[in-house]
Amino acid sequence: MDRKVYLDNAATTYVSSEVMNEMIPCFASIYGNPNSIHSFGREAEGMVDRARDRISKAINARSSEIYFTSGGTEANNWAIKGLARANASKGKHIIVSKIEHDSVLASCKELEKEGFEVTYLNVNAEGLVNMVELLHYIRKDTILVSVMAVNNEIGTVQNIKALASIAHDSGALFHTDAVQAIGHINLDVQEMGIDALTLSAHKIHGPMGVGALYVKSGIAIEPIIVGGTQERGKRSGTLNVPAIVGFGRAVEIAVRDIVPNNQKIKSVRDYFLRKVMEKIEYVKFNGHPFQKVNNIVNLSFDMVEGEAILVMLDMEGIAVSTGSACASGSVEPSHVIKAIASEDDARGAIRFSFSTATTKADVDYVVDTLAKVVEKLRNISAVTKTGRAK
Amino acid sequence: MDRKVYLDNAATTYVSSEVMNEMIPCFASIYGNPNSIHSFGREAEGMVDRARDRISKAINARSSEIYFTSGGTEANNWAIKGLARANASKGKHIIVSKIEHDSVLASCKELEKEGFEVTYLNVNAEGLVNMVELLHYIRKDTILVSVMAVNNEIGTVQNIKALASIAHDSGALFHTDAVQAIGHINLDVQEMGIDALTLSAHKIHGPMGVGALYVKSGIAIEPIIVGGTQERGKRSGTLNVPAIVGFGRAVEIAVRDIVPNNQKIKSVRDYFLRKVMEKIEYVKFNGHPFQKVNNIVNLSFDMVEGEAILVMLDMEGIAVSTGSACASGSVEPSHVIKAIASEDDARGAIRFSFSTATTKADVDYVVDTLAKVVEKLRNISAVTKTGRAK
Repeated sequence: MDRKVYLDNAATTYVSSEVMNEMIPCFASIYGNPNSIHSFGREAEGMVDRARDRISKAINARSSEIYFTSGGTEANNWAIKGLARANASKGKHIIVSKIEHDSVLASCKELEKEGFEVTYLNVNAEGLVNMVELLHYIRKDTILVSVMAVNNEIGTVQNIKALASIAHDSGALFHTDAVQAIGHINLDVQEMGIDALTLSAHKIHGPMGVGALYVKSGIAIEPIIVGGTQERGKRSGTLNVPAIVGFGRAVEIAVRDIVPNNQKIKSVRDYFLRKVMEKIEYVKFNGHPFQKVNNIVNLSFDMVEGEAILVMLDMEGIAVSTGSACASGSVEPSHVIKAIASEDDARGAIRFSFSTATTKADVDYVVDTLAKVVEKLRNISAVTKTGRAK
Repeated sequence: MDRKVYLDNAATTYVSSEVMNEMIPCFASIYGNPNSIHSFGREAEGMVDRARDRISKAINARSSEIYFTSGGTEANNWAIKGLARANASKGKHIIVSKIEHDSVLASCKELEKEGFEVTYLNVNAEGLVNMVELLHYIRKDTILVSVMAVNNEIGTVQNIKALASIAHDSGALFHTDAVQAIGHINLDVQEMGIDALTLSAHKIHGPMGVGALYVKSGIAIEPIIVGGTQERGKRSGTLNVPAIVGFGRAVEIAVRDIVPNNQKIKSVRDYFLRKVMEKIEYVKFNGHPFQKVNNIVNLSFDMVEGEAILVMLDMEGIAVSTGSACASGSVEPSHVIKAIASEDDARGAIRFSFSTATTKADVDYVVDTLAKVVEKLRNISAVTKTGRAK
């Protein structure tokens, strides 16, 4: 079977032709180092400035508040560690949710070794952060609250404005990882009261290897990569011009087309869910029923391992994922699903993530195949009588 | 005048068509996340593995010893801070040269704040590290010695094998920044006794935004970017597949063609130097007369500011640089030239850096223009009677 269906767009997306067209000239024609003073450098700098403008406009920030990084993971590392270290004189307490991306959680673990204290907030069964817990745990020496705008595994959209407001009332800064949010929900850093925000290009048909951190003007942040004068001394290293240019274009398109894209993806997603409900029994939906992005669907299949489904779908040309791609290879079931459901649900979870390129014909093929795969695995599981295949 | 001559190849280079041809399919065809388990992911992983193999072969390392980063600056930050922190139990003393790249020097400054002690070695008038000083300052608690293989401003090639041997005799690790060395001199980490080595793609006609750190198997290094399982848990973040693929190809070509490329560049470089000597008086050559790479020439012009020459050459379409691009915008004269010569020499210094695309016709145009520019600036300088233009 040569048919290929890619439903792992939350892991990474193909680069669109519109993005490619803007990137291509930056490899061999406009190839200066934007830090160079001469015309080759200034031309490259102009391309970077334009991308910075586009990205700042997309989130209602100023272009001077955008700092380019090598991706979302670096930006999250920088936000958590950089804001904490720069503001340590005001306090050493940080609050994050239990369903943050591993780059946030691992950065918190580093800070704990440095003497910071971190509180990990629970989420409810739909994946929403418990605001009562936040109100309970926040204190005078809390310097930073970080909650992701959209969860990468279940797609739940947090109440960012309310969370930021609670943080500010207590004098803490508010950071959000918006890697899975941009292009799917509206982001306005001023209206939402966001002090720092993480973005990435390759989830929205932009290139890999580039991301950004928005840092509100006037907020202190320590760099994690030092050496040059790039990014106003806050992030050293030669700017990745082609990727930044592609990133700017990808953000511009994603935000411009947010309404039609959401409609298109929602229609395919709803069709997918209806077909799954029709064809497969004992399926559990993970996440919030409506306060979520359209492109991510997370389902747990009773009595089967997610990993087994993934492998068998792959044999039929269908790409899906268990947890996040970043945690792949890990034997641990998803920390996100464990936070909202049982360990069994976590072991049986599969993330299907759509793009505007996903068609109803793709969905037909995927659900038909999925129904066969789940049935086959449940038969094996019933034979082994362990209730859940190893 | 529409003529353009780019002599700033030590800042960055155009991406070659051979490299582009391998990168292009990775944007929209082979676009999986190499961390994903499915076939899209495995295909991308295969591309990354091939690049890793090519790079490891080029420096005689094992592929498992290559870790991809976002560039040379990140790799240097990681090497210095990661090796120091992971080996702090053995001692807290580090030795580097005074002419290291700013990413090394700034990382050392960070470590000093963390309680490490750093010794900065002097270099002689040709830019060679003083080995007697190294022997004098190295001690039992010295855990790391870092000296760049080829200096980015003057091109001097250090005696890496001898320096590494002194470090090892004292039980210290040896790191070298080889960003300006790969493709210009032979690198063999085993033969030279190198424990960690920094590489970058965009100086050798590869893409921006990607570099690598070689870390010898068995050596402890703490990550600086955490979160995922990528790069065996040592460097988190989605792998930048197209850039890594381009990097692998660029390294392969640079090392394969090292002899003819060096001959070609040397011939143009020698022609350049002869013409400069013929046409311009009171020029000082900065760096080692022969223990140097061919592509970098650094000259100081008496009685004129390097910055003024750069700006006037730029008006004629010629791209050169004063210090490194990374330090551009800084008002300080180059720390490298100051280390080998006078502050006046540093203020008058210009780096010309060639590629295989540089022709003798380019050189004719550059030197003729340069002679006029220098004469004009010296006339202004003579009129103002300050001896050196402001």
